[in-house]
Amino acid sequence: MMQQHGLTEHELRAWRVSFEMVELLRTRIEQQLQASSGLSNADYTVLAVLSEAPGGRMRLYELGRVAGWEKSRLHHQLTRMSRRDLVLRERCGSRGMDAVITERGLAALEEAVPSHAQEVRRLFVDRLTPEELNRFADIAATILDGLRADRASAQVP
Amino acid sequence: MMQQHGLTEHELRAWRVSFEMVELLRTRIEQQLQASSGLSNADYTVLAVLSEAPGGRMRLYELGRVAGWEKSRLHHQLTRMSRRDLVLRERCGSRGMDAVITERGLAALEEAVPSHAQEVRRLFVDRLTPEELNRFADIAATILDGLRADRASAQVP
Repeated sequence: MMQQHGLTEHELRAWRVSFEMVELLRTRIEQQLQASSGLSNADYTVLAVLSEAPGGRMRLYELGRVAGWEKSRLHHQLTRMSRRDLVLRERCGSRGMDAVITERGLAALEEAVPSHAQEVRRLFVDRLTPEELNRFADIAATILDGLRADRASAQVP
Repeated sequence: MMQQHGLTEHELRAWRVSFEMVELLRTRIEQQLQASSGLSNADYTVLAVLSEAPGGRMRLYELGRVAGWEKSRLHHQLTRMSRRDLVLRERCGSRGMDAVITERGLAALEEAVPSHAQEVRRLFVDRLTPEELNRFADIAATILDGLRADRASAQVP
């Protein structure tokens, strides 16, 4: 009914199924996380990234880069998490700030991991053949590289 | 550092790149929509779906199914949109309710479409070869089918 300026019918269909998948997959993964552990997708990402960093800590700048969040989004996310004692922020040297996972944060993550991994397997990994999984991850990496490069260039003043 | 119960290292890497792509792509698409037209991804979905339905209207049940939202999420979304006069809800027959796109909703959609389509092309379509686009959409459809089937079975009392 409406003209989709600049996309062919075929491209539009490919985009729509992809975007619907994106929306529904993240919603379902988050519902399961929330129900089983009270964590959001964003909470889980922060805890998983910090738990794997040396000493469970990371510069805010680096954490924001890994998570793909702007400064204000990262700030609000860490504020909510520090109120729940999942992370804390510590000054590191004269200028930098670190995010640090707490004992409670590590315990919350360890509790969440098994059922989260099971849900990822059920809704994603087991739905695909090994070849499809590899192809999907390769194409996702291509898209992700583009998104990151675009972000980097957009931040140049 | 942490054991990822039930996922191999390879599967976990495939999932992580996929999930990061999912998160960053939807964030970036929404940022562009918000900046150019004040619409969220969810607003855009509702407007696009209704604009293509006969008479610009659809049963709430059907709209929720297409968007992949539960009843309460759909309710809150439509309440926010009707406050902005983008949609309205109308009783249809003795039991059903329809969501209907308003003139203002249609105008907002038509204003948003060109730059949204351009962003979809820039961040997604043009990053991939035609073969990659097709493969990605096919695999996304497989995942989406699984998510929908799972949802349907979860709703059986």
